[in-house]
Amino acid sequence: VTRPRPRGLPPEDELVARLTSVLGTRRRDVLLGIGDDAAVVKPGEGPLAVTTDVLVEDVDFRSDADPRRLGRKALTVNVSDLAAMGATPLYAVVSLALPREADPAWFEAFAQGVRSAANDYGVAVVGGDLSAASVVFVSVCAIGRASEKGALTRTGARPRDAIYVSGTLGAASAGLALLEAGYRLHDDGVSGPRGRRVAAARAAELARLVRHQVDPRAMVELGRMLADGGLASSAIDVSDGLARDLHRLCRASGAAAVIDASQLPVDSGLALLPELTGFDPRSAALYGGEDFGLLFTVPKRHLAAVDRLSSRFALRRIGEMTAGSTVTLAGDGRSALLPEAGFDHFSGESRPAAASPKTRRTRA
Amino acid sequence: VTRPRPRGLPPEDELVARLTSVLGTRRRDVLLGIGDDAAVVKPGEGPLAVTTDVLVEDVDFRSDADPRRLGRKALTVNVSDLAAMGATPLYAVVSLALPREADPAWFEAFAQGVRSAANDYGVAVVGGDLSAASVVFVSVCAIGRASEKGALTRTGARPRDAIYVSGTLGAASAGLALLEAGYRLHDDGVSGPRGRRVAAARAAELARLVRHQVDPRAMVELGRMLADGGLASSAIDVSDGLARDLHRLCRASGAAAVIDASQLPVDSGLALLPELTGFDPRSAALYGGEDFGLLFTVPKRHLAAVDRLSSRFALRRIGEMTAGSTVTLAGDGRSALLPEAGFDHFSGESRPAAASPKTRRTRA
Repeated sequence: VTRPRPRGLPPEDELVARLTSVLGTRRRDVLLGIGDDAAVVKPGEGPLAVTTDVLVEDVDFRSDADPRRLGRKALTVNVSDLAAMGATPLYAVVSLALPREADPAWFEAFAQGVRSAANDYGVAVVGGDLSAASVVFVSVCAIGRASEKGALTRTGARPRDAIYVSGTLGAASAGLALLEAGYRLHDDGVSGPRGRRVAAARAAELARLVRHQVDPRAMVELGRMLADGGLASSAIDVSDGLARDLHRLCRASGAAAVIDASQLPVDSGLALLPELTGFDPRSAALYGGEDFGLLFTVPKRHLAAVDRLSSRFALRRIGEMTAGSTVTLAGDGRSALLPEAGFDHFSGESRPAAASPKTRRTRA
Repeated sequence: VTRPRPRGLPPEDELVARLTSVLGTRRRDVLLGIGDDAAVVKPGEGPLAVTTDVLVEDVDFRSDADPRRLGRKALTVNVSDLAAMGATPLYAVVSLALPREADPAWFEAFAQGVRSAANDYGVAVVGGDLSAASVVFVSVCAIGRASEKGALTRTGARPRDAIYVSGTLGAASAGLALLEAGYRLHDDGVSGPRGRRVAAARAAELARLVRHQVDPRAMVELGRMLADGGLASSAIDVSDGLARDLHRLCRASGAAAVIDASQLPVDSGLALLPELTGFDPRSAALYGGEDFGLLFTVPKRHLAAVDRLSSRFALRRIGEMTAGSTVTLAGDGRSALLPEAGFDHFSGESRPAAASPKTRRTRA
């Protein structure tokens, strides 16, 4: 006889059983999945890529985040790290801490979201751990197979290499600004502040921007093609903004970069946001995080091969590596140093004034 | 020119650089360590064991926990999961969320603790992630090499197998009770509530109990010998108390267990705690978590081989598997069902009244 529980989550072992049911996999390379002290997997020979990313409520995502999308995003940001190495995702484990009084439906939707992204990227979720906490924490560790041609690191960029970025810039940042302004994503579209209807002509575009923020895509196929083809000399995923991530790449490679401002693929939707006071599209494109495109460098001899991938992966050549250690933004006959600004969990300093409508510290 | 920061943590990239310096490794199987989007490792062929364990402030450890020991414990509890599978630890990644205003010395001590445990167990810490949070949150994912003879799972126990446990029971629980009562561990011993001195004759024993709680050991060598020798039919580490973990093992194996109460290796120090009102040694041994010994089952044909390991690993034969699905505690001519109680992060129910001096929900 089980005593009725007033509300909140069931005991830990019941939650684990639920995860086993939602996330269970029958893949041959998974010898033992969720439910024992550890999983046992058989990835075969060759190097593996291993990464971990943590998301914290009120810091990395909003408290009202949709749990299914949160589950998807927690897995996806890890897969994005593997993509930036040119690795193919294989396995993940998921740690989750959440309040005891949480709604079991929240937990279920989160698990379904993890499952959904795992299916998208061919990831077997083989284990996890649960704990209680006053705010929600999600930590994922993802393991992938590195390319036989070697991993795409941040350290290989050389002067004269071309700099590319995939996708557009600033959309995730715009999506966050819309959420902060009260816009909400629904199954059938988007609503404005205080539940206001949004004109049909703009609804699809606004929904797209919010979706960039809450449900990003990882560029696995692009990373794999760059690595397997030996096309890129370095790569990083744009998680903390183009400026900060390019600075990181330059520092790791011991080189400098010059970006052509006219070539920045500023998302076309960013110009359509007059309701967001102070939102500057170009600053969002430079300093706004979480676009999760790949930023990579290409030696001259591989330019033609990479340009053949351009339309498939929405690639844009935005500049060139040079000798030195600075990052320069050039355009309109002028050039200026691009500051190393963007998202930092511990910085007390705000983003550059124009980068964001508010100097928040919350990302999503 | 760097502007002076008022206090709190430096920017994220500086913290990562510090981690790289403290945790960096030169092992040949680590092709790329901390600092890129992912690590790249080359574990060679054969199955791998993967586990993750999360520790949350105020739930899994006390806010005044020594950061070095916390770092050690976060790694060790993961290594213990690998040990319970009979796997040999290879790699770990560490996610840490902590308040922005945290003392950089706390961060440094935590990293040194992770390093220290990693050295103890031959683990290369190859990556991690940082975020901000109102409470400290640590999540580790550890990867090990599974035994060629197969992993020790929870599912293989059969009726007539003998049940063993390594080490003593209840010491970690007693250590927690001492901490809650105000005892504190120092480099040179232990102090009592409100800083009172502790009689020299008892100081070493009290310090040992507290150390069991804050600085546990993982039974890697024992797990490996059981797996490589094909000696154990099942295994689990005692993290949430003998009763709960034995119930888990029985449920996974589809079998029952009878425990001989007179054979329980109740820690000898537990009888020496008259200052802890209501602390019952036998309940602590049955329901107190975090002893991190291995609980395992042995088919009759391997009893002699396991008994030869007894003194080296402080093994005790405590009972036998039977048909059915219950866990029975027998002794003094009586027997009674052992309830499935012990630690559960989400249970609103308290531990059995006698199990713990208080019905807290905090573990360590």
